[in-house]
Amino acid sequence: MPELRKDPVVGRWVIIATDRAKRPTDFIRERVVIQGSSLCPFCPGNESKTPSEILAYRGDGSGRDAPGWSLRVFPNKFPALGIEGRLNRQGEGLYDRMNGIGAHEVIVETPNHMSVLAALPAKQIESVLWAYRDRIVDLKKDRRFKYILVFKNHGEAAGATLEHTHSQLIALPVIPKRVLEEVEGARAYYDEKERCVFCDILSQETASGQRLVAENDAFAALSPFAPRFPFELWLVPKAHQSAFEASPQREFELLAALLKDMLQRLDRVLDQPAYNYVIHTSPIPESQNDYYHWHLEIMPKVTKQAGFESGTGFYINPTAPEEAARFLQEAVPSLPKRP
Amino acid sequence: MPELRKDPVVGRWVIIATDRAKRPTDFIRERVVIQGSSLCPFCPGNESKTPSEILAYRGDGSGRDAPGWSLRVFPNKFPALGIEGRLNRQGEGLYDRMNGIGAHEVIVETPNHMSVLAALPAKQIESVLWAYRDRIVDLKKDRRFKYILVFKNHGEAAGATLEHTHSQLIALPVIPKRVLEEVEGARAYYDEKERCVFCDILSQETASGQRLVAENDAFAALSPFAPRFPFELWLVPKAHQSAFEASPQREFELLAALLKDMLQRLDRVLDQPAYNYVIHTSPIPESQNDYYHWHLEIMPKVTKQAGFESGTGFYINPTAPEEAARFLQEAVPSLPKRP
Repeated sequence: MPELRKDPVVGRWVIIATDRAKRPTDFIRERVVIQGSSLCPFCPGNESKTPSEILAYRGDGSGRDAPGWSLRVFPNKFPALGIEGRLNRQGEGLYDRMNGIGAHEVIVETPNHMSVLAALPAKQIESVLWAYRDRIVDLKKDRRFKYILVFKNHGEAAGATLEHTHSQLIALPVIPKRVLEEVEGARAYYDEKERCVFCDILSQETASGQRLVAENDAFAALSPFAPRFPFELWLVPKAHQSAFEASPQREFELLAALLKDMLQRLDRVLDQPAYNYVIHTSPIPESQNDYYHWHLEIMPKVTKQAGFESGTGFYINPTAPEEAARFLQEAVPSLPKRP
Repeated sequence: MPELRKDPVVGRWVIIATDRAKRPTDFIRERVVIQGSSLCPFCPGNESKTPSEILAYRGDGSGRDAPGWSLRVFPNKFPALGIEGRLNRQGEGLYDRMNGIGAHEVIVETPNHMSVLAALPAKQIESVLWAYRDRIVDLKKDRRFKYILVFKNHGEAAGATLEHTHSQLIALPVIPKRVLEEVEGARAYYDEKERCVFCDILSQETASGQRLVAENDAFAALSPFAPRFPFELWLVPKAHQSAFEASPQREFELLAALLKDMLQRLDRVLDQPAYNYVIHTSPIPESQNDYYHWHLEIMPKVTKQAGFESGTGFYINPTAPEEAARFLQEAVPSLPKRP
């Protein structure tokens, strides 16, 4: 018998189709394999092919927009939003619009074209997280912005157009709908119980263990109770914290270690799948609060969405999270490759 | 300058990236071309390969589960939900679950394997709409169900697994999230203004005309103000009606004509794209009301979703709806082909 399950934060029901359960090997998918390219604008030596850098972690003596960096951030050459100008909010009858003001940046995670994020040393993954934090802290100063969205598309099936491993950041004058739903759901839960719903989820999941994939001192990785996608994973800080960028220093190290571990396990179980991840953090107004709890959501791209999902908000997930968690628990991560 | 626009019903902001506007021919896509198959379980003569029919429109003298039908409805052979049993609602700590009880049916729209919906005679498309209505009216009697979801996946890119043209129906004991958001948004609007938000949209759109693609006596086809996808289209009844199945008889004829017209224009402008459509109608409890307004949403599948959309609820649409409407206004529909 399939099961209907409700996400405790946003209230979405999903079908968990347990009786047509699929094993990881049943999913139709394409392995993400790095081909290499001599024309990559993200490679060292090609800095002139991108807009000028905003931030770079680089060795002594190397110059701006020149090789010698270990991580580099610059504006997206084809930004979805423009950084200059005023919001100019306007009505049009019953409609609302404003200028598409925002920042759209690219974070190149390593100079090494042939590596993927999961294969980078944990220390380098930690640098990527610090770059997210540094850019968020800087962009928060711009009073036009209400939300800063950090995400990664890995593999063509997940929307990546260049294969050199990178993340993206979009600063927005509005709050993305799914984040807003989570914030509102968490606030309603807090209003009723005076507890954070994510803290409650963490304590239930660590007690039961059936959806807990791994944990360390600061983070838990879990298959959520009502996932929309097979092998969806949440990385949640154990101590309550509403804003990613306000995390204690030590937590970036521990998050990097767990993120690397999880990406390697997904690579092993799903044979190098395409994936997206997104950081869900508090909106900038009221970013420090007791009701919301930041986390990172990983969504492997292993099924073709049937299409009606986007028209209905209704999802059918062929893999129960307990099954997914079991496969991931048993996946001994491969030895870290050196880039 | 790109623009941020807010959907007036659900409050979702989208980026309309007007300055990297794409012409219809710029979209990467695959034409949906019917290949033909001698093994199709939806073809006449192969009725034994499907579960026994629930409903069929057929000529005199033809027998159940035998050829002679013009339209045929049967349970999905691999249903996402089970029809037998009780909901058995249960808690698990802070989580909620219930048995996956529901109906999952297939509506085969024509015996002709080689036709697509857009190419069927308007009278046959009207029959398809009557089949939706007949099944909804029947399934509403089952007190376990709260919502009946009618949708169509056309083409592999839109999730169709069999090419013989068909629709699907899922009856659910819960309300899909996106429908619930619309119902709640429409109710909030009504509480404030004592008017239906969709009626207000209709009057604004028919007055301005810039997003109105076509209309007839009973329906308007429009590009919504804040669409998530390029060439998204809504077909909205002009007279207020919350429930699809309660539409007056004459409206099925007029909806069929407009739907055929719109699908043909999409075929012409986007070169036979894959698409999904979904009927958004009132939930079964309170299905007759003043605040919600049923409509049909068509979503052509012309872009690969970047992936972060599902993690954020945030959409970037490269085609302004005014542009899409203009292309569709100018697309003279091709002459109806006979199947």
